[in-house]
Amino acid sequence: MKKYNFYAGPAILSETVIRKASEAALEYEGTGLSLLEISHRSKELVAMMEETESLVKELLGLDDDWAVLFLTGGASSQFFESAQNLLNEGEFANYVDTGTWSTKAIKEAKRFGEINVIASSKDQNYSYIPKGYDNPQGARYLHITSNNTIFGTQFHSFPDSDSPIVCDMSSDIFCRPIDPGKFGMIYAGAQKNLGPAGVTLVLIRKSFLGDKRSDMPTITNYHTHIEKSSAFNTPPVFQIYVCLESLKWLKSMGGVEGMQKHNEAKAKILYDEIDRNSLFEGTAAKEDRSLMNVTFVSKDESHQTEFLAACEAAGCVGLKGHRSVGGFRASIYNAMPKEGIEVLVQIMKEFENKKG
Amino acid sequence: MKKYNFYAGPAILSETVIRKASEAALEYEGTGLSLLEISHRSKELVAMMEETESLVKELLGLDDDWAVLFLTGGASSQFFESAQNLLNEGEFANYVDTGTWSTKAIKEAKRFGEINVIASSKDQNYSYIPKGYDNPQGARYLHITSNNTIFGTQFHSFPDSDSPIVCDMSSDIFCRPIDPGKFGMIYAGAQKNLGPAGVTLVLIRKSFLGDKRSDMPTITNYHTHIEKSSAFNTPPVFQIYVCLESLKWLKSMGGVEGMQKHNEAKAKILYDEIDRNSLFEGTAAKEDRSLMNVTFVSKDESHQTEFLAACEAAGCVGLKGHRSVGGFRASIYNAMPKEGIEVLVQIMKEFENKKG
Repeated sequence: MKKYNFYAGPAILSETVIRKASEAALEYEGTGLSLLEISHRSKELVAMMEETESLVKELLGLDDDWAVLFLTGGASSQFFESAQNLLNEGEFANYVDTGTWSTKAIKEAKRFGEINVIASSKDQNYSYIPKGYDNPQGARYLHITSNNTIFGTQFHSFPDSDSPIVCDMSSDIFCRPIDPGKFGMIYAGAQKNLGPAGVTLVLIRKSFLGDKRSDMPTITNYHTHIEKSSAFNTPPVFQIYVCLESLKWLKSMGGVEGMQKHNEAKAKILYDEIDRNSLFEGTAAKEDRSLMNVTFVSKDESHQTEFLAACEAAGCVGLKGHRSVGGFRASIYNAMPKEGIEVLVQIMKEFENKKG
Repeated sequence: MKKYNFYAGPAILSETVIRKASEAALEYEGTGLSLLEISHRSKELVAMMEETESLVKELLGLDDDWAVLFLTGGASSQFFESAQNLLNEGEFANYVDTGTWSTKAIKEAKRFGEINVIASSKDQNYSYIPKGYDNPQGARYLHITSNNTIFGTQFHSFPDSDSPIVCDMSSDIFCRPIDPGKFGMIYAGAQKNLGPAGVTLVLIRKSFLGDKRSDMPTITNYHTHIEKSSAFNTPPVFQIYVCLESLKWLKSMGGVEGMQKHNEAKAKILYDEIDRNSLFEGTAAKEDRSLMNVTFVSKDESHQTEFLAACEAAGCVGLKGHRSVGGFRASIYNAMPKEGIEVLVQIMKEFENKKG
């Protein structure tokens, strides 16, 4: 039976990417070797990494002031490394708290400098994106989480800020075009909207990063990875290759502009059904609803197990909501085809008919 | 043409492991999904990680005081994290410097406490393992690098020490049985003797680690990963699966005892030829020669390019020596079959005939 993958992460990859990954694991591009056993110093893999870097820049419109790094440790490592690298003596940073991951970013950053939490939507279980708050001038950076996987909210425009934005885009990078000029740094664990688990994309404007410091471990210093093109130590080459194939697929779909249209169309179908269907309701403020993670609950809590079973029976997996919100979460990242949404909507309609 | 993979890392994997990896990338065990897109919280992957942990313990003979962690960041991250986690106020650690990686471990550890370098083989370009040095009592731990990938040396017995050994086993873990009682912690990047790049195995005795501290980033705190069974954040699930398949293969080959015999037999064939062949000589002290990385040079430097070309022509890749030693390096990890060694030896013999 065909499966529709609604997992929040690791998450759906397009079928062409999966086929390429499987082939490369068996034999990489005529080398006679599996991609899993080829040296990162080989000419083939150096070229592969350069191609990936170049495609990231092309798709996001990044100029040569931007460094593209393939690191490990997930966004969770960037929570501390960003503050450790960026905050110099006497500097402060502003943070907007929009959910679990923002809260963790704040906690880890506080170890390395003065952190102002300038806005939070904790008062309503992070069901909205704060607006109209004061963003004190003179900060080293403003940190935001562009999409909140758990709570199903997303920044649909980025805040005005005199300081560059440092953004955790783990769950919505490449879902739409961005204006790079607003950002100083962007980071994303790959395993939601980009590739498999095990690689973290870190984009950093070199002029924003500034001069090299020596007061931190070599491996957590961004300059180390910039100087060595992400090969200071062995990078996760297979993961990077899967990201490359994923980006090639994305380019073939019209790049981030094409992807935005695709994502908006998909999300509209699902949100429209949630709003129409008498059994369900969305949990996020309508104006802040995520294009990536659609959170909703059944009005009658006793329906929950049965609805999830109906989804499973139709081949839709990964729809159980996070415990912080309950109910259901449909993660409909870039690689989710419209067909997957239509199958889910059909289950919702049938469930309403059955219960009505 | 069949290729023989002598890369130092990422390095050879057995053919059965490569096939399983390729299949799992296409579809994981009847789930209808690629292993690259399945949630680490799914019952299938939680079970897979538990099986891997259990097999690591079984193969190395570790009791329940040992935590088995699957982290990222490579051994390079453990260089600082080990000292950060282990060294408390007023404590010191002893380090033996046997090459590039030891030197890096020492540099990073010094950021977190008092480090005594008690022995070094730097005086002879790290071509031997120091012996007969003083190991001051009362240290928190003694740090060694069990196998030196670049210089082709290996500890064939572990030092006597009143303090537990913390060991970087990146390039020889699972190559032979060990006595766990001598160790407090063992760490290894997977990409040499265990699996693909992108996962780091960290084994730590919980009673040696001691109580939880709060003075470090959450993600670099070993307690975080012990409490969350390596799933505090998204682990590199595909990499862990490839390690699992690699360990299953190892078990089928007689476990670490069987592997030791296999490795000793393979290494003997190659070292015997190096010693016999008039054109080549080994670079490491004979009594410290590595079972994993066989370093040698041509006596006539002008032969180098031609010999490498002869190797390439016969399907042997990755034999160029590291720039710190020059010449050639045959990395003959667990997964290298005896046949690969025999092909290389045959090339060496033919080269001698041609030049003689």
